Amino acid sequence: MDQQNLRELLIRFQSGETDLEGVIEKLKHLPFENLGFAHVDHHRAIRHGFPEVIFGRGKTPEQIAGIAEKLLARSSNVLVTRTDQQAFELVQKIEPTTIFHEICGAISVIRDRTEYGKGRVAIVTAGTSDIPVAEEAAITVEAMGNQFIKLFDVGVAGIHRILSQRELLQSARVVICVAGMEGALPSVVGGLVSVPVIAVPTSIGYGASFGGVAALLGMLNSCSSNVTVVNIDNGFGAGYVASLINRS
Amino acid sequence: MDQQNLRELLIRFQSGETDLEGVIEKLKHLPFENLGFAHVDHHRAIRHGFPEVIFGRGKTPEQIAGIAEKLLARSSNVLVTRTDQQAFELVQKIEPTTIFHEICGAISVIRDRTEYGKGRVAIVTAGTSDIPVAEEAAITVEAMGNQFIKLFDVGVAGIHRILSQRELLQSARVVICVAGMEGALPSVVGGLVSVPVIAVPTSIGYGASFGGVAALLGMLNSCSSNVTVVNIDNGFGAGYVASLINRS
Amino acid sequence: MDQQNLRELLIRFQSGETDLEGVIEKLKHLPFENLGFAHVDHHRAIRHGFPEVIFGRGKTPEQIAGIAEKLLARSSNVLVTRTDQQAFELVQKIEPTTIFHEICGAISVIRDRTEYGKGRVAIVTAGTSDIPVAEEAAITVEAMGNQFIKLFDVGVAGIHRILSQRELLQSARVVICVAGMEGALPSVVGGLVSVPVIAVPTSIGYGASFGGVAALLGMLNSCSSNVTVVNIDNGFGAGYVASLINRS
Amino acid sequence: MDQQNLRELLIRFQSGETDLEGVIEKLKHLPFENLGFAHVDHHRAIRHGFPEVIFGRGKTPEQIAGIAEKLLARSSNVLVTRTDQQAFELVQKIEPTTIFHEICGAISVIRDRTEYGKGRVAIVTAGTSDIPVAEEAAITVEAMGNQFIKLFDVGVAGIHRILSQRELLQSARVVICVAGMEGALPSVVGGLVSVPVIAVPTSIGYGASFGGVAALLGMLNSCSSNVTVVNIDNGFGAGYVASLINRS
Amino acid sequence: MDQQNLRELLIRFQSGETDLEGVIEKLKHLPFENLGFAHVDHHRAIRHGFPEVIFGRGKTPEQIAGIAEKLLARSSNVLVTRTDQQAFELVQKIEPTTIFHEICGAISVIRDRTEYGKGRVAIVTAGTSDIPVAEEAAITVEAMGNQFIKLFDVGVAGIHRILSQRELLQSARVVICVAGMEGALPSVVGGLVSVPVIAVPTSIGYGASFGGVAALLGMLNSCSSNVTVVNIDNGFGAGYVASLINRS
Amino acid sequence: MDQQNLRELLIRFQSGETDLEGVIEKLKHLPFENLGFAHVDHHRAIRHGFPEVIFGRGKTPEQIAGIAEKLLARSSNVLVTRTDQQAFELVQKIEPTTIFHEICGAISVIRDRTEYGKGRVAIVTAGTSDIPVAEEAAITVEAMGNQFIKLFDVGVAGIHRILSQRELLQSARVVICVAGMEGALPSVVGGLVSVPVIAVPTSIGYGASFGGVAALLGMLNSCSSNVTVVNIDNGFGAGYVASLINRS
Amino acid sequence: MDQQNLRELLIRFQSGETDLEGVIEKLKHLPFENLGFAHVDHHRAIRHGFPEVIFGRGKTPEQIAGIAEKLLARSSNVLVTRTDQQAFELVQKIEPTTIFHEICGAISVIRDRTEYGKGRVAIVTAGTSDIPVAEEAAITVEAMGNQFIKLFDVGVAGIHRILSQRELLQSARVVICVAGMEGALPSVVGGLVSVPVIAVPTSIGYGASFGGVAALLGMLNSCSSNVTVVNIDNGFGAGYVASLINRS
Amino acid sequence: MDQQNLRELLIRFQSGETDLEGVIEKLKHLPFENLGFAHVDHHRAIRHGFPEVIFGRGKTPEQIAGIAEKLLARSSNVLVTRTDQQAFELVQKIEPTTIFHEICGAISVIRDRTEYGKGRVAIVTAGTSDIPVAEEAAITVEAMGNQFIKLFDVGVAGIHRILSQRELLQSARVVICVAGMEGALPSVVGGLVSVPVIAVPTSIGYGASFGGVAALLGMLNSCSSNVTVVNIDNGFGAGYVASLINRS
Repeated sequence: MDQQNLRELLIRFQSGETDLEGVIEKLKHLPFENLGFAHVDHHRAIRHGFPEVIFGRGKTPEQIAGIAEKLLARSSNVLVTRTDQQAFELVQKIEPTTIFHEICGAISVIRDRTEYGKGRVAIVTAGTSDIPVAEEAAITVEAMGNQFIKLFDVGVAGIHRILSQRELLQSARVVICVAGMEGALPSVVGGLVSVPVIAVPTSIGYGASFGGVAALLGMLNSCSSNVTVVNIDNGFGAGYVASLINRS
Repeated sequence: MDQQNLRELLIRFQSGETDLEGVIEKLKHLPFENLGFAHVDHHRAIRHGFPEVIFGRGKTPEQIAGIAEKLLARSSNVLVTRTDQQAFELVQKIEPTTIFHEICGAISVIRDRTEYGKGRVAIVTAGTSDIPVAEEAAITVEAMGNQFIKLFDVGVAGIHRILSQRELLQSARVVICVAGMEGALPSVVGGLVSVPVIAVPTSIGYGASFGGVAALLGMLNSCSSNVTVVNIDNGFGAGYVASLINRS
Repeated sequence: MDQQNLRELLIRFQSGETDLEGVIEKLKHLPFENLGFAHVDHHRAIRHGFPEVIFGRGKTPEQIAGIAEKLLARSSNVLVTRTDQQAFELVQKIEPTTIFHEICGAISVIRDRTEYGKGRVAIVTAGTSDIPVAEEAAITVEAMGNQFIKLFDVGVAGIHRILSQRELLQSARVVICVAGMEGALPSVVGGLVSVPVIAVPTSIGYGASFGGVAALLGMLNSCSSNVTVVNIDNGFGAGYVASLINRS
Repeated sequence: MDQQNLRELLIRFQSGETDLEGVIEKLKHLPFENLGFAHVDHHRAIRHGFPEVIFGRGKTPEQIAGIAEKLLARSSNVLVTRTDQQAFELVQKIEPTTIFHEICGAISVIRDRTEYGKGRVAIVTAGTSDIPVAEEAAITVEAMGNQFIKLFDVGVAGIHRILSQRELLQSARVVICVAGMEGALPSVVGGLVSVPVIAVPTSIGYGASFGGVAALLGMLNSCSSNVTVVNIDNGFGAGYVASLINRS
Repeated sequence: MDQQNLRELLIRFQSGETDLEGVIEKLKHLPFENLGFAHVDHHRAIRHGFPEVIFGRGKTPEQIAGIAEKLLARSSNVLVTRTDQQAFELVQKIEPTTIFHEICGAISVIRDRTEYGKGRVAIVTAGTSDIPVAEEAAITVEAMGNQFIKLFDVGVAGIHRILSQRELLQSARVVICVAGMEGALPSVVGGLVSVPVIAVPTSIGYGASFGGVAALLGMLNSCSSNVTVVNIDNGFGAGYVASLINRS
Repeated sequence: MDQQNLRELLIRFQSGETDLEGVIEKLKHLPFENLGFAHVDHHRAIRHGFPEVIFGRGKTPEQIAGIAEKLLARSSNVLVTRTDQQAFELVQKIEPTTIFHEICGAISVIRDRTEYGKGRVAIVTAGTSDIPVAEEAAITVEAMGNQFIKLFDVGVAGIHRILSQRELLQSARVVICVAGMEGALPSVVGGLVSVPVIAVPTSIGYGASFGGVAALLGMLNSCSSNVTVVNIDNGFGAGYVASLINRS
Repeated sequence: MDQQNLRELLIRFQSGETDLEGVIEKLKHLPFENLGFAHVDHHRAIRHGFPEVIFGRGKTPEQIAGIAEKLLARSSNVLVTRTDQQAFELVQKIEPTTIFHEICGAISVIRDRTEYGKGRVAIVTAGTSDIPVAEEAAITVEAMGNQFIKLFDVGVAGIHRILSQRELLQSARVVICVAGMEGALPSVVGGLVSVPVIAVPTSIGYGASFGGVAALLGMLNSCSSNVTVVNIDNGFGAGYVASLINRS
Repeated sequence: MDQQNLRELLIRFQSGETDLEGVIEKLKHLPFENLGFAHVDHHRAIRHGFPEVIFGRGKTPEQIAGIAEKLLARSSNVLVTRTDQQAFELVQKIEPTTIFHEICGAISVIRDRTEYGKGRVAIVTAGTSDIPVAEEAAITVEAMGNQFIKLFDVGVAGIHRILSQRELLQSARVVICVAGMEGALPSVVGGLVSVPVIAVPTSIGYGASFGGVAALLGMLNSCSSNVTVVNIDNGFGAGYVASLINRS
């Protein structure tokens, strides 16, 4: 039943053709989704002011450009994660302000630069190899209208590195903490700040790092109570949740 | 070097007994932590207004009561997780307002009922068996000064259950979503709200649930971007982070 | 908005107090679930003619009896899985026809004995230790109105055992195949019949059986194309799906 | 002993050369398989009306074409899964009606288009990346003579997507539900329909999806009772069993 | 069709009531197993001269005694593994020569002491904690008519222990090598002898021994080519295969 | 100390230069390996009549040829496993009778064709994809002087395939059973024969086969007592042990 | 051949009864271990000055006392790990100076208090729950003649705790670092000192700590180069190696 | 606050501009790291006399050369692990004494050849395939100023190989033991020496070696008390710790 049907039903009711109980009975069984449910989604899109996001892996450059074109027609900001130069070139033809972030294979179109966040997001990495994941988070945070600071290569084996940045770290409203290998940094960072820390395990390491499992488990078992975890290498997810927190 | 030593050093400097370079040299090598670093911790405690928390497992009732006594001397609110009736009775002797939450084996002393949170925390469970973990989260959220709502037993196999509570759910500023078995609820909830969802896998299930691993993996792989995860059965951690977010 | 609100809205429309567009606008945003969605569930219950099922583990005898009482008020057949003698005695007080199946810890109340199934369900086990899980399946199949045959202890190490029952096996419309250890039976059975085989791994075994994982993996990798798998020890689930297939 | 031997034995018996006990003794020990057992297989082939299937992985295009040629001589429908363009071109030379399904690397020859199924098979995917596996299922379902409907990209993070298709979904006699990442869709779908749901985990995802393990575990632990599971990425198996169910 | 039916069929053929083709047709479809197949099993039992074995775990003392009684009626030697004193007492009432091996929870009845083995079986353990599993192997080897030698507590951390027994070890026709923890002994033993080595991982150890998995993996990866492996703690299986080898 | 030193010591003793205690003291501390221990190894080589074996993976063609040259100087038969055409060509230059077995990447030089085995080794595979591993076993068995029979593609989903070869199978003195996917064949084969069955899991399969783990676990948990297991894809090891058994 | 035989052989040689070649031939084949090899072990015991150690788990109090009695006859210091009060009481009857360490279930007899170590061993724990494992290490270190310092409950979530003890920590010649949960402490400690750090994962934690696996993996992947790892909860092993290092 | 600020503060104090309490208050909150903490790091570098190390994986040749250039300006010895010929050529341009170790992909610059170690480091491998990892350890040990001996290809399947080198082995002050497959060598070596053994599992093997996991678990469960473990293939880490021990 679409709106046309509903309209006709109500007119039949108004005209007395159908009685009250008949209308109620019909409405009780009508497929809710055709009436108003899609609005929820629409509302949500508006409420969010969030970028549209395309997960690029497994999609051809053409597919990405096709989807991007549709999304760019209705959204100011569009993000493509885990994609490549080729897709970028196609999207750039559609929207010249498109930027390619080679380090993490992300494409961003940021036409709405409203600052939605209320504070700063700190993005911290243990090593230099974790930077690509951190950059994916940074681009997400940026596309969602947040200020952010980067503290890279401050892993726990040289504890003074993170300690010397303590004040900067403590100025953030939410921290994204990216680490591979043993994934110990979020526990230390969690102890230094009193805001939520979103831990991102990375697949950096070898042998018993098992592609990020060691870091993931370390973070899930963090002795700092303010740490939550996202999937291995999921910089985007961390940036997304950090933005939500910073916006609240 | 403690403050007494520092004081003496400075007096020696003031009196000319030690020259400027000598003081600087000493200060450069002084063990920083004895000067001011402990203040950080102290500040943190004050800034947080957070309860002190004792992880009860592996501690005897006497040990718990002993620690609780010390904490109660300096903090308004104290929480003991994963403990039992016996420990409760000892703590209650120290502080008569102590409450025992049998369902999750937690003890709470809440003497400061200031509302620190700015909105409401929604605590959602997939099944009735997940309730103990949710209650641990609820007690934490309460002890940290938050209003909260409970939506229990709204698992995805009867999708109308969570859908029918959509408005209530959407009224929250942060959602804690507790689920065992396949752990699918956070993905659905994450799609219904635009605030952070903290997913708590529970060890509920049997066979290939592997003590909560199935739920944990499901949540880490959630297709909803606003989901972060804590350890299996870690209701306390979820409540803690939710409180931080609601407070920001 | 509940039916009362809807009724009032329509009366206001009928009386001209609200115009057509106003009603449509309201309806578009009404919480669908309060109108008719619950009916879906209701319909489903009726359509199924299925028993209500209580998963007993983690519930006290009193809780089980309490839930059973409510369910017995609206459903003919009720099943409690993974429970005990004590719960049985309480349920029996409510409904004297209640039966306790000690072998698998299940309680069944079967007041509607309509035969919903169109053929027979064969329930096969590799060893005698797999029988409890098979019995849980059998009770489910029975409670859902199916004829069934049991072929127990016909594991592949003595291949003539299952071969000698081939005709009986081939008379079934769907086969439930329960096996622990290496879980090889479903592959052999799958090759002997041309109907769906629902494989149930059991936690029977030791050492590298890893509580049923070996059997589970074996079944998921079955070289027989007609095999699908349920969770370790999930006799109920297998019985449920077999009943659905037999009913179609 | 083949039929010739049997024939001679019986003639010797008829002529009195061998007595009754001698014949029985011989028959008791004759290798059963040479007498009639192969018929079982033959019967089965006829009874099934099923396509012959070649698992292409690890076979050269020439080997595939060779096997396909033999199968095409005795069966109307032949399916090759997990193969490539090159194998297709060789098979097409043998049978011009051969079709290549690039999306899932399958080759199909469907010369018998009898409708064996009694209802419709619904094939549902959570995301667009799951489509190749769903297409393998679709081709199988088609080759086995079933009508089917496709509902793609209706994952649970946007729950209205599957809800809005509820009526269509409920029109199916069996549902194939394909999902990667957290594999939550089968639980939701299972709650919406009262027919068997065959869940297919896919290897879509990254990090802690562990090549489909997260989805697999999620599906095995589904809280919907009507869900059974096949191997990761096993679209063919799901299509095969769905066809069996739809045929019964 | 049983022998009676077959007899009648042949008489009908002899009498001309049925013609040759009719008999052949019937025979082709007769259920082979009723004719002669069961003989295979019977033959096997006789040929083996092997004890009957009951896996005791999960069986009540009464069940064990019941099965043992039947087996004792037809077999000289009967073994019950993983059982207890209570079962022993019941079996002893049936057969007074029954022996209980408390160390590994096995019951043995050995009435036939024929020496079937041609050489000696060496049973070796790494530590004293591995002895129960070794004893299960020893009892099996004994019940199957083999001479054997025991070399216990000769683990590789004190390599001279096994080296000093080299000549004894080399006198065996097959070696059973039982080890927990790192499971290194079979590799060393394998290098010292030129006969098959059956490695039995035990669940001895803690932490990263994972209940015998470390030992199991070590043995599967043995750099000695003459090592094969059985399940964790499967002393019986090792004894059984060793007996087969020693008998050949 | 080598033999020369020993000789000198004894002569000094004979001449009275050293007394009895002096000799004993020296002998007690002499490095045993230089005296006689190497003989053990030498003896072993002679006693075995076994081929020398080179594990080719990770070695360059030149390295392989170099090692092969040395081994060919002292042994009649040499085997190279997991190597390639290039290495073969180099070895062939050294020894023209060298054969390359492309299917499993093995090189064999068999100059001693003495029949060491006393019976036949049966080599059985579940599918055609398991053949390369079976061929590695076959070449090993051949190089060690055994007669063997091959029964390929007799997996359990078409149980008549292995049953129809039962007599042939039962003629073997030891069986090598190679299977991937669910690895069920050894259990069936083990029930059909009364000789040792060496099970070889293969990495054939996808998804939850986990590179052969499913088959490996299935085989370790075999309900047939005469089954032992070697590493995944370890055809050589199976052939080696089978030869030892057949030789005993 | 023991020394008596050797003596006789040499006398026969001296007397001309056996010639030089005959002696050499005999010696070449003599079982080396009976001559001098056992001395190695003896030497080792003396050289070490190490305590004898009994792993108590799985041994009865009587067995422990029995072994202890023998060891006490030849060694000054004896350690029993993972045992209980009952075993202690029996050992104490043999040696009154025996001490029971209830916290880690260890018994120690230290009669030789020579200081073998050259510096101090620091024993550090992340939490209070890790103390039992640390105490096992401490007792080992003590029994092996080392001075040691304890730094307990200095986990990384409150980084100032370990930092404030930096000087003390840096005074050690080797550090034992005990931690459960995420096992992050060794990485931080490793960065603060320039001596070897022996990391001991503990089974402290719940959920995704998997009985110490999370901590174990974290430690194996430590970004500090001076960290090595022992088994989960292996306080004894850590103490043993630390003593070796401190002694060198 | 840097030294300039500190200086000014003290001068203000000296001049009476600030009183004692004011200085102390300031000092309590000053960011410690700017005062003296960096000295710790500097001190550490000097104290160590250790080479600077670059982990090459994931870095471009240009990046490696860039970092190397900076490090070479302040350190005598520089090591690059897991890199390639191309990076070598760039580094060689900066420092002509650079050496490339192709076998393990390492680059070393050793300009300071002071012997820091007090004894010898023994580096032992089980097989020839383990040599690259052993060479990484050797280069590290060399760059840190140690004498070392290599005992390669002395795996336990031919136990005389390691036994015949016992005296050499026992001459070392610390042993690095590198092994793949079952990883049994460290247990044997650990029993032969009384010094610390650092075990390095390698990813050598196939099937159930799981990329080195089998060896890793074997080593963690070693029955020799003097064994500690580093990550799979971590030759550098083993060399580093061995150097620390040898230096102490």
